[in-house]
Amino acid sequence: MDAALTELETRLAEISDLSKATGVLGWDQRVSMPPLGTEARANQLATLGRLIHEKFTDPEIGRLLDKLAGFEETEPYDSYRASLVRVTRRDWEKARRVPVELEEEMTRAAASGHHAWVEARRNRDFASFLPYLERNVELKRRYVECFEWTDSPYTPLLDDYEPGMLTSEVREVFAVIRPALTELVAAAPEVDASFLHGDFPIEAQRAFVERVVATLGLTDGAWRLDKTVHPFCTSFSNRDVRLTTRYRDDDLESIWSTLHEAGHGLYAHGIADELVRTTLGGAPSLGLNESQSRTWENLVGRSRPFWDHWYGPLQDTFPQLRPVGLDEFMRAINRAEPGLIRVDADETTYSLHIILRFELEQQMIEGSVALADLPEIWDARMKEFLGVDVPHVGDGVLQDVHWSGGGIGYFPTYALGNVISLQIWHVVREAIPDLDAQLASGDVHPLSTWLRENLYSLGSKLTPKETIERLTGSPTIDPEPYLTYLRDKTQTSV
Amino acid sequence: MDAALTELETRLAEISDLSKATGVLGWDQRVSMPPLGTEARANQLATLGRLIHEKFTDPEIGRLLDKLAGFEETEPYDSYRASLVRVTRRDWEKARRVPVELEEEMTRAAASGHHAWVEARRNRDFASFLPYLERNVELKRRYVECFEWTDSPYTPLLDDYEPGMLTSEVREVFAVIRPALTELVAAAPEVDASFLHGDFPIEAQRAFVERVVATLGLTDGAWRLDKTVHPFCTSFSNRDVRLTTRYRDDDLESIWSTLHEAGHGLYAHGIADELVRTTLGGAPSLGLNESQSRTWENLVGRSRPFWDHWYGPLQDTFPQLRPVGLDEFMRAINRAEPGLIRVDADETTYSLHIILRFELEQQMIEGSVALADLPEIWDARMKEFLGVDVPHVGDGVLQDVHWSGGGIGYFPTYALGNVISLQIWHVVREAIPDLDAQLASGDVHPLSTWLRENLYSLGSKLTPKETIERLTGSPTIDPEPYLTYLRDKTQTSV
Repeated sequence: MDAALTELETRLAEISDLSKATGVLGWDQRVSMPPLGTEARANQLATLGRLIHEKFTDPEIGRLLDKLAGFEETEPYDSYRASLVRVTRRDWEKARRVPVELEEEMTRAAASGHHAWVEARRNRDFASFLPYLERNVELKRRYVECFEWTDSPYTPLLDDYEPGMLTSEVREVFAVIRPALTELVAAAPEVDASFLHGDFPIEAQRAFVERVVATLGLTDGAWRLDKTVHPFCTSFSNRDVRLTTRYRDDDLESIWSTLHEAGHGLYAHGIADELVRTTLGGAPSLGLNESQSRTWENLVGRSRPFWDHWYGPLQDTFPQLRPVGLDEFMRAINRAEPGLIRVDADETTYSLHIILRFELEQQMIEGSVALADLPEIWDARMKEFLGVDVPHVGDGVLQDVHWSGGGIGYFPTYALGNVISLQIWHVVREAIPDLDAQLASGDVHPLSTWLRENLYSLGSKLTPKETIERLTGSPTIDPEPYLTYLRDKTQTSV
Repeated sequence: MDAALTELETRLAEISDLSKATGVLGWDQRVSMPPLGTEARANQLATLGRLIHEKFTDPEIGRLLDKLAGFEETEPYDSYRASLVRVTRRDWEKARRVPVELEEEMTRAAASGHHAWVEARRNRDFASFLPYLERNVELKRRYVECFEWTDSPYTPLLDDYEPGMLTSEVREVFAVIRPALTELVAAAPEVDASFLHGDFPIEAQRAFVERVVATLGLTDGAWRLDKTVHPFCTSFSNRDVRLTTRYRDDDLESIWSTLHEAGHGLYAHGIADELVRTTLGGAPSLGLNESQSRTWENLVGRSRPFWDHWYGPLQDTFPQLRPVGLDEFMRAINRAEPGLIRVDADETTYSLHIILRFELEQQMIEGSVALADLPEIWDARMKEFLGVDVPHVGDGVLQDVHWSGGGIGYFPTYALGNVISLQIWHVVREAIPDLDAQLASGDVHPLSTWLRENLYSLGSKLTPKETIERLTGSPTIDPEPYLTYLRDKTQTSV
């Protein structure tokens, strides 16, 4: 048993190293790579991806798992060793169901789909993208057929991002929040946020956000922050965390973009050392990971106590904010305002963009919608959900990269993250009664320490629902704390 | 045959991708990585290194080479296909002679030796490094035993960096240049270079060197320049070239450091497309690669015509140079001045540092010197070769990283590069009679184009000696052009 476990660990460590190497190549591509390096980089990433897949689906891993049959019942459920065998078994069995040829077809279709999407979005031309989307959807349907499912053919896709989550469970949550959000948006008061646009020199923004991030609980020498076009966070160990952000010289969005990525970074930084070079070295799901980026971006970064501490330094950095009172600033950064673009959406409207996509994705996989009709349906639902008119497909159905690369099933995790963030926040507030006073004094460490000890350090030993249950006492995704939070935010002046 | 060749190409392309991935991880480590990322990065690099070794020494490569027996004689010697099979056969046969266990022992000894060296150099304590050096030397002797050699047990080590070069050939060259250089150094006039020290703001240096590099022949979008502690150049394809340099705010050394790395970069950039993802995608040897870094650093970058063009812009950048005439500047940047440290040495003294190391390395491998006596011997030879007194081992025998990582056989390539650079330069001057006028007008493209077409594009299709023969008409390494150049430089005012 012990020999089999050691052999399994060695193989998983090798796969983890290759995955991290892939991460370094991806980070470099988005932060540093000269543009003409693209073609060679695609080859390098494809080779690493193929090796990782080969090594993880190697029959020898199956033989080791056979030798370890029942092992996971002999140690505590959440122990490192039991979790390693259990989670590896789950992932291996899922990966083995997909024929290599289908994996490769999906990879190729994603690459050419991405290329077609870039062009189509630029030209606002859905028709040119349609054949690529059709191909991606067709392959996803073949992928779904590799699995058994009960409630919806969408569930195997969702499961790639939210292990163990059912489509029906997400539907239930979204059925509650959709009308509630539409109502909130319609009732949201107009708020003056004009002072958030103006002249905000990028170097000053950079210095300010670096200063803020340095207080959040990331160890010195274990992270860096760079600029990029589409912000992201990646990590190559829990001591090598790469945040990226985007600066515009006429607004302050870099603050919340950076706090968002810092939330992901704190998660990666908090993974327990013993999990780092294994299959357990990440968050249990995209939704849980997103819950923490949203926590730091919104629940901390748009809170009154946080700005009680930081608004003075912000005014010192940008003196044009001196005439703007903190109450006024708080209202502006918490306002709800329907818009066309998901990535620019505020907290209140954001999940509506997601629910629209979630509904369309299910129809696409079920085959209950003609893909050619997507632009029309999109525009109608934008009107229905958010009351906005879509001027062209570039700001409509073509705005997101996900479908071009076959990333169907990913979108709902964003909204789940929003909802889960409030469930966890509710527990945090009970555990740290002084939280507001701490934030107001600039002391974020009790918060980040609690989250690390109770959530981040677990890695993916538990499933998303098990993780939520450990924190909240119930595995259910409960939208109420989320809706209460948004109602408080939009209907009272902060 | 064709099927075997295609299969070989596929395997070599995969190995090349993994090597480039290793390169990206190495670049990131030295340019971007937060310090606490070190441990995880070592794991990632070790895994990639092991995979590359496994894949290259795979018996299947041997079977493919067997199937391709005689193939390299059926196509022109310098054709892509003949060269690919010939060079791969040579490299594979060399790699297969070394037992995996010995490779791994060497890797481990190099890692711990490096660690011990860092400490020992800081503490100026040779004794603490001695056991690690002994281990490295012992392993190198076992490595040498894997090969047959005729002239010296040092030859298999040299061959790793200069394929096909014999120790005896290097000895012959060095026997000529050593006394000549010692004589030149002793006779060198004192030159006032005080104006090269002063206040040179780093941002201004950066802008100036970026401007210079942009004129050398590297395609826009195919390179970048970053700062680092120990400058180096690496590339991940011929269209993704990474230069690094070091800036000090009190001198202008960044100019020549950058030109040096740009020379390596031009080589990597000039590799023919068809060679990039194969075993042929680099320079034939370190010496030839160094010949080009030296060409751009010295033969171009310390030449009068180059500064005829650039001295004005440099004076505009650093107005304190306005009172300094170009003649005076030229004398200062071409002066010979004995010193302790190899990496700070000028053109004239540099090779003497190398010859000292080359002689010691041969004795270490032959076992004709007690390693404990190295500091004493080092100091005595520094006095003999360069007339300087070594104050402590940190500035003496412990100054270089190479031996700590088992890099024995590497040093002579630096001096060979110096010598070869002048042999090639001689041919260049004949091929481009207008060269001086072009450089004086800031037009470097005819030079970089000639070097790309006649040298860089060949990659490692030919051995070093074959490459030199193709360019100069003779395979011999001839020190005369090099000595003539240095005599002209140090004894006449430039």
